[in-house]
Amino acid sequence: MSRIAYVNGRYLPLRDAAVNVEDRAFQLGDGVYEVCEVRGGRLIDEARHLARLERSLAAIHIAQPIDTVGIGVILRELVRRNRVENGIVYLQITRGVAPRNHAFPLTPVRPGIIGTARSLDMAQGEKRAEEGIAIVTVPDNRWGRVDIKTVGLLPNVLAKQTARAAGAYEAWFVDRDGWVTEGASTNAWIVTGDNRLVTRQADHGILSGITRSVLMDMLGPEGFSVEERAFTVEEALHAKEAFISAASTIVMPVVLIDGKPVGSGTPGPVAKRLRAAFHRHAEVAPAWSVHRGGRNATVTDSSKKPG
Amino acid sequence: MSRIAYVNGRYLPLRDAAVNVEDRAFQLGDGVYEVCEVRGGRLIDEARHLARLERSLAAIHIAQPIDTVGIGVILRELVRRNRVENGIVYLQITRGVAPRNHAFPLTPVRPGIIGTARSLDMAQGEKRAEEGIAIVTVPDNRWGRVDIKTVGLLPNVLAKQTARAAGAYEAWFVDRDGWVTEGASTNAWIVTGDNRLVTRQADHGILSGITRSVLMDMLGPEGFSVEERAFTVEEALHAKEAFISAASTIVMPVVLIDGKPVGSGTPGPVAKRLRAAFHRHAEVAPAWSVHRGGRNATVTDSSKKPG
Repeated sequence: MSRIAYVNGRYLPLRDAAVNVEDRAFQLGDGVYEVCEVRGGRLIDEARHLARLERSLAAIHIAQPIDTVGIGVILRELVRRNRVENGIVYLQITRGVAPRNHAFPLTPVRPGIIGTARSLDMAQGEKRAEEGIAIVTVPDNRWGRVDIKTVGLLPNVLAKQTARAAGAYEAWFVDRDGWVTEGASTNAWIVTGDNRLVTRQADHGILSGITRSVLMDMLGPEGFSVEERAFTVEEALHAKEAFISAASTIVMPVVLIDGKPVGSGTPGPVAKRLRAAFHRHAEVAPAWSVHRGGRNATVTDSSKKPG
Repeated sequence: MSRIAYVNGRYLPLRDAAVNVEDRAFQLGDGVYEVCEVRGGRLIDEARHLARLERSLAAIHIAQPIDTVGIGVILRELVRRNRVENGIVYLQITRGVAPRNHAFPLTPVRPGIIGTARSLDMAQGEKRAEEGIAIVTVPDNRWGRVDIKTVGLLPNVLAKQTARAAGAYEAWFVDRDGWVTEGASTNAWIVTGDNRLVTRQADHGILSGITRSVLMDMLGPEGFSVEERAFTVEEALHAKEAFISAASTIVMPVVLIDGKPVGSGTPGPVAKRLRAAFHRHAEVAPAWSVHRGGRNATVTDSSKKPG
């Protein structure tokens, strides 16, 4: 099935989905985005994603072109038209099309809204979680406001490519003082010797992940305490466990950092337990079911069960 | 006259010039660009711009899709089709279109090449140079490789907008140690009490401007010496003169920084002299004349004469 994209009010075959070459996201990186997980045809943590989108737009002074209800309609329509059972939906808002000039257009233009959706192989994710992943570390040379979810992702692109070239799944950025900030597209976590979870405080130095925030809410009920603080690569190597979190990755155990084993060198019980807890959360997430008629439709895809 | 753009092999009316929504420059900032001045229908400093484009592509591992001769043909055709006598031509190369993923496409895709051109009002630039411009300073929060001319320009966009909101023409980035790095789209210069020119060394912290490099070559013959080193805002305020340089700005005197006068508070003789010298350089630049048949056609537009 050919994929369908949304572009400024129209649903089009992806091959025909285009933006003008003077769209400011294309020439100036002047846009923001969200990626929302789709599970059983439902949007997971939609409200949190849309709230963050509002914050991103406000941070770079783009007026929200349509309200969150309207954006939610687009996201669900993309899921439906692309028949995504499990996967992701992507939404990008740009400042719009105007003759190239660094400053904002003097005559306000209509922001651009584009969206895509695609299926992901949940079984592959589960297999990866059973094996654990390798991380490489790279210097964090990104700009000072990575808390804003902008499309200026070239440093992340280069970091992820460095990871792949090294046979790893993700790269962790390490700041000039030796602290891990986050992954190229994920948040970074460790589990200390006394079973406390540690993840970097959500300042301007990381993107405050939606999955990270959901995990935060789960930790108390799951019997864990959390410290929001930075950690070093050395501390991560001596931790009981390490893992990453993101909407498309959920909780993914880290077993190697720069070729050295973390803890036992195999996925640990805390990461497994949190992954399972997130799966339960996603099964009861209060979102519209777009395929199956009605809210909270039962998810029957067995591939999403934690390993 | 409607503008004409170049998109992946075709010349199209600008309104029809589009790239796919999964172009990696649009979604990931994964592209580089050049802006070349056009004077009397000729490309100024074409060879230097194309050499820098090659370096930018190499730095982010995009294979050059066509050789510099071919790119030069596109640039000149854009100038011709848009009937640009004085203005700029813009060229952007992206990694290409692929399903969104941070790492490079596993199956190599064809890089995207797009170009636009437009006329600029030379008389307006001359008037601005006669009056001098105001600068505001902003913290330099950009990534660590601004020496690569990538389209990830959101920090520059926000800085330029801050300048405009303050009634200024340009913003100077100041790094965490208090050193001026460069402007949002220009290089920064001062003239010391003993008539030495100072501009930041071309390390990873600035884009090595083409106009900057041309000025460097002119300074000896013009009787000036240069120091490539960082300077502070305080030093700039106590300098005899300050100015900025860029392909579209040439040499532009700075008379105010954060509301405080530089030197006499009026454009100084060194900036005026260098602007005039650059104008002479541009008149004899060894480039093709695309309108007027033949190399080095005489430039007759009187608006470009220095004030």
